[in-house]
Amino acid sequence: MTLHLHDAPTPSLVLDRAKLARNTAAMTAHVTGRGLRLRPHMKTAKSIDVARLALAGNFGGITVSTLTEAEYFAAHGITDLLYAVGIVPSKLDRVAALLRRGVACTLITDDPGVAATIAARGRALGVTFDTMIEIDVGEARGGVHPESDDLLAVGRALGAGGGARLAGVMGHAGNSYADRSIAAVAATAEAEGQFAVRAAERLRAAGMDCPVVSVGSTPTVLHGPVVPGVTELRCGVYMFGDLFQAAIGSCAVDDLAVSVLASVIGHRRGPDRVVIDAGALALSKDRSTAATEQDAGFGLVLMEDGSAPPVPLRVERTYQEHGVIEIADPALFARFAVGSKVRVLPNHVCLTAAMYDSYLVVDGGSQMIDTWGRCNGWGPAT
Amino acid sequence: MTLHLHDAPTPSLVLDRAKLARNTAAMTAHVTGRGLRLRPHMKTAKSIDVARLALAGNFGGITVSTLTEAEYFAAHGITDLLYAVGIVPSKLDRVAALLRRGVACTLITDDPGVAATIAARGRALGVTFDTMIEIDVGEARGGVHPESDDLLAVGRALGAGGGARLAGVMGHAGNSYADRSIAAVAATAEAEGQFAVRAAERLRAAGMDCPVVSVGSTPTVLHGPVVPGVTELRCGVYMFGDLFQAAIGSCAVDDLAVSVLASVIGHRRGPDRVVIDAGALALSKDRSTAATEQDAGFGLVLMEDGSAPPVPLRVERTYQEHGVIEIADPALFARFAVGSKVRVLPNHVCLTAAMYDSYLVVDGGSQMIDTWGRCNGWGPAT
Repeated sequence: MTLHLHDAPTPSLVLDRAKLARNTAAMTAHVTGRGLRLRPHMKTAKSIDVARLALAGNFGGITVSTLTEAEYFAAHGITDLLYAVGIVPSKLDRVAALLRRGVACTLITDDPGVAATIAARGRALGVTFDTMIEIDVGEARGGVHPESDDLLAVGRALGAGGGARLAGVMGHAGNSYADRSIAAVAATAEAEGQFAVRAAERLRAAGMDCPVVSVGSTPTVLHGPVVPGVTELRCGVYMFGDLFQAAIGSCAVDDLAVSVLASVIGHRRGPDRVVIDAGALALSKDRSTAATEQDAGFGLVLMEDGSAPPVPLRVERTYQEHGVIEIADPALFARFAVGSKVRVLPNHVCLTAAMYDSYLVVDGGSQMIDTWGRCNGWGPAT
Repeated sequence: MTLHLHDAPTPSLVLDRAKLARNTAAMTAHVTGRGLRLRPHMKTAKSIDVARLALAGNFGGITVSTLTEAEYFAAHGITDLLYAVGIVPSKLDRVAALLRRGVACTLITDDPGVAATIAARGRALGVTFDTMIEIDVGEARGGVHPESDDLLAVGRALGAGGGARLAGVMGHAGNSYADRSIAAVAATAEAEGQFAVRAAERLRAAGMDCPVVSVGSTPTVLHGPVVPGVTELRCGVYMFGDLFQAAIGSCAVDDLAVSVLASVIGHRRGPDRVVIDAGALALSKDRSTAATEQDAGFGLVLMEDGSAPPVPLRVERTYQEHGVIEIADPALFARFAVGSKVRVLPNHVCLTAAMYDSYLVVDGGSQMIDTWGRCNGWGPAT
């Protein structure tokens, strides 16, 4: 394929393979260099081509956020999956279909009643559901407290009578996203590991096996200490990076591997504005950088070739299919002729990427080398 | 199909056909009763099945926001389309392919240079691009001012030498979304109509034909006066309604036809919270109701059958695949067992619906009667 981005349709999602490969290699070296296993989270990329880069040098297991991802990656040959969203009984039949195909799809729960139902359903279906206990490691979203009675109750329910097996404990310190210094992230990371290890120790003291202790988020994996007893780290957004991750110190803006290609569709003078064909759908309404010192509006604007404009430019407002960039310097207007293209770096790449079925892949610069698919949504993987 | 929502996968998008039909019939009666033509905007619904209801009793033309919608609706037999986002030359070949199939796909522009390019490209391709001039009717997003020199320059460029034809003027008072009273919306609507009519009069005074004067947004169409000279009204979100439209007086919450079906996947006590499997992707990060007196968080929670819970409940926080509902009354917890289902009304249905490939259609209640497809994204319609 020799298509140049200048000839690509807009809006489109552009992925710079060179930056992606640099990001995945760096994280793999960081985690394996500490003697830990990295289980990349594919919720952001949702792409087998990206997974292959993320898995290079790692043990081969991935994390997924939907059963659609699980089915898609299984169909592409990945056989060790952790489905890291609390399972509900109505989803077990879909998981059982994966198990019967030889795919190890591990579940999570934090609920004693659900744990009992998992085991009962496994017995009824003739399968064994490997299940981890979700631990609240500080975020207070999901998970049992490591000192709670529920921790042991969930473990016992999974172990009773077959149909399920306690595979370990897992937690996610999403609260690290609220930290505003590397030292604060490191403290959050230490708590994340210690809470999970403490839960594993209590299960073992009660006579249960707990082979895996899995934690992680991009900030805590990057900046946290090694907590003895943790066996596995999970993170995902590091593959692409985004403006929020840059604002909290997880990466540099120059590391960002994904941008939205947009066309300039209109001009206005006084105040000077450029209108592009990437709005709330193409960029998402995420405003996470507003809570940081680097508010990027709805995204930072780059030139078509990925270089920075002469002055920083942001998408200030979005409508469903329109984005508005304000340009204070009238001399800059000529650089953004109607019909010309820009690239917009996203605040939160997980949400932006979810609007596209595929990536236009470049390898530095603006020459497309490939198109890579994505598995969006929650339906059966196609 | 006899599937009950209780057995449907989650998250899913639910469409209540009874409410949809009531909303579309009411708007059609409202507009045609004033002697005007209604050109429904399909950017929200992106569904031929919804379009058929919206077109009942109307002249047959629709508005679209992407070329994907244009191709999809053309493939389903709709032959009068207005593509209401400023055209750029790189998209003209895709439009020409529609014209050659006998589909009238009208374009918009506000740029004299683009207008000249449209005409030149039409001549080169042997087609005539019907094009309307986008008028700034108060929003200051896109469009030329009705008193500007550019207005006449765009008109003359379209008329010069064949390849294009001036089809009329169009404007959209999206600024009506900032109005906080019906009287303010009515004033915005009057300006919307008067600006567009004034532009048409100036074009005609300069010797140009300007057959169509098209304006509209759901609030201004509902609450505005009839402005003499306006020939056509456009709006779209009225078909479904959403919490933002309810908050600004465009509909009642009971009129909302679309909700997200979600499963309860976890419980927490102290503070009491229910975690559901509908988060930022399933609901969108839109927080438009925060600017109104009816802040709905990330969405209002209904019971599985669409009825209201005993006390109002909102989705307070979202993560990629998790939503969190706070429940102050512990007695309510039993109503939200893990594995049970809820329905979430969206703040901004255009963005929420865009995350789904299809609607689970009910006709009041919770019994599915059909599944309707949607045409998302910007690629070729499939």
